Amino acid sequence: MNDHAKNDENKYTRPRPRNFMMRPDEQPPFAELMGMKITHMSPDRVTAELVVTEALTNRNHVLHGGAVMALADNLGGTAAVANLQPGTSTATIESKTNFFASIAVGDTAYAECTPLHRGRTTTVWQTRITRGDGRLAAIVTQTQIVLTKPGS
Amino acid sequence: MNDHAKNDENKYTRPRPRNFMMRPDEQPPFAELMGMKITHMSPDRVTAELVVTEALTNRNHVLHGGAVMALADNLGGTAAVANLQPGTSTATIESKTNFFASIAVGDTAYAECTPLHRGRTTTVWQTRITRGDGRLAAIVTQTQIVLTKPGS
Amino acid sequence: MNDHAKNDENKYTRPRPRNFMMRPDEQPPFAELMGMKITHMSPDRVTAELVVTEALTNRNHVLHGGAVMALADNLGGTAAVANLQPGTSTATIESKTNFFASIAVGDTAYAECTPLHRGRTTTVWQTRITRGDGRLAAIVTQTQIVLTKPGS
Amino acid sequence: MNDHAKNDENKYTRPRPRNFMMRPDEQPPFAELMGMKITHMSPDRVTAELVVTEALTNRNHVLHGGAVMALADNLGGTAAVANLQPGTSTATIESKTNFFASIAVGDTAYAECTPLHRGRTTTVWQTRITRGDGRLAAIVTQTQIVLTKPGS
Repeated sequence: MNDHAKNDENKYTRPRPRNFMMRPDEQPPFAELMGMKITHMSPDRVTAELVVTEALTNRNHVLHGGAVMALADNLGGTAAVANLQPGTSTATIESKTNFFASIAVGDTAYAECTPLHRGRTTTVWQTRITRGDGRLAAIVTQTQIVLTKPGS
Repeated sequence: MNDHAKNDENKYTRPRPRNFMMRPDEQPPFAELMGMKITHMSPDRVTAELVVTEALTNRNHVLHGGAVMALADNLGGTAAVANLQPGTSTATIESKTNFFASIAVGDTAYAECTPLHRGRTTTVWQTRITRGDGRLAAIVTQTQIVLTKPGS
Repeated sequence: MNDHAKNDENKYTRPRPRNFMMRPDEQPPFAELMGMKITHMSPDRVTAELVVTEALTNRNHVLHGGAVMALADNLGGTAAVANLQPGTSTATIESKTNFFASIAVGDTAYAECTPLHRGRTTTVWQTRITRGDGRLAAIVTQTQIVLTKPGS
Repeated sequence: MNDHAKNDENKYTRPRPRNFMMRPDEQPPFAELMGMKITHMSPDRVTAELVVTEALTNRNHVLHGGAVMALADNLGGTAAVANLQPGTSTATIESKTNFFASIAVGDTAYAECTPLHRGRTTTVWQTRITRGDGRLAAIVTQTQIVLTKPGS
């Protein structure tokens, strides 16, 4: 638990306004539930690691495809937030994943997210997810819409 | 907890072979971590519900897009398993999601998965995810490959 | 050839401004090259037919996948235009296709496009393409962004 | 028209068996209709050029999105064929495109297709399409299934 969290123990139960803007490096609850760890963050590149625990597995006893997609979606969202102008927020509007190889329990999923496009109304991100042995496990492309907050 | 689970308390820590085939109605660990509940299952249709808890939220304080995709992926996998012939297994090879509306904390995500295509080598599934007010929140299309197990 | 076209024989060679807005029922040059025929158009539903000629085939001697996607993209664009407010235009920002069955030379591809979502900044369309025997050949989901024209 | 074509003027009207296998460098009719030109072909990389003529435009008077997708699909198919073992054929089972910038009439679309995955049952290809000024116009990811021909 980081210092911010220590000082903010009620953050999940306290009412928060819609579009509350967390800092890019402050990860949302679902990322914490899964155990994602951001390892690098800049507007041009975000990386993360996810240790494959039993709790994250599918019926083939490897990392669940949904967990792979959630890891990527969280990185794409983090990268999009790192590129926002004041008074704007972002949401994923579409995401596409191709799966190439499974990731076993005990292994780590390494994710790297880089931009394909950064426009005024949308940004598009590609995340490559590799295994400990370096093999490409999945590739995810997602579009984030840039929203102007009410009142801005 | 069902009877099978009661007799198998160590199921997540015991080594299991790759491609161990759970029954379609036995949900994998990641589905349990998230709190998905299968509400109907037949080869032609699988439905599920997911209560949106704080732990499943993104930085906009609504259901995380990754959780939406995981819910759908789990249904598509369940539906694909319900259509498998003996001696075969399945894996998701690609998945595409469009997001239309967010789902708030306390609301429930309702998911319904139906087949678009059921061939010998692939099956393709479409999952519609709606909110408590009936609005379409997301639509997911995924392809499952049918694998012949070694030794079959 | 409709009356508008009769009065406008040089329409492909005359310079036209970017974002020139054709009427929804006036089809663009690429649709004419391929031989698409719009058979119904309303804001809620657009349908078209495409006769599979030799010129549209791939190396397997059936309708080229690219032609299938072009047929759908053209319908999605037409449907999006039929929903535009004055002073706006639209462009496809992403498109996803799943192919299920091939369409033979001499057969006709029947396409039907309906909305999944119509928001202020994006509209999302799904097009089902069926063969003469009624079998589903492909399904296409695409997102159209709504652009405000400069000066509007 | 190349020498092969000169000796085979009836190739589009003569009946051909399903799954007739063209050489990878022999382009199918739809590619010729559009004017695609393959500029490099090896199992690891295929490139092509497409001059944007009036006939290929959409209602915004730029290269039609369907033409962009057809260009990519044709390259992915060509690349997949270049990797086939004897007695097998291939078909596109799914394709995803993100569009970033339009390509004007008179400009040339440059496409480069490289593999993301080459397995026994599927190969996955990514095609980047750039404009004359080097800007990325679109990116396409597609899955090709490897089919064993009847009798093989």
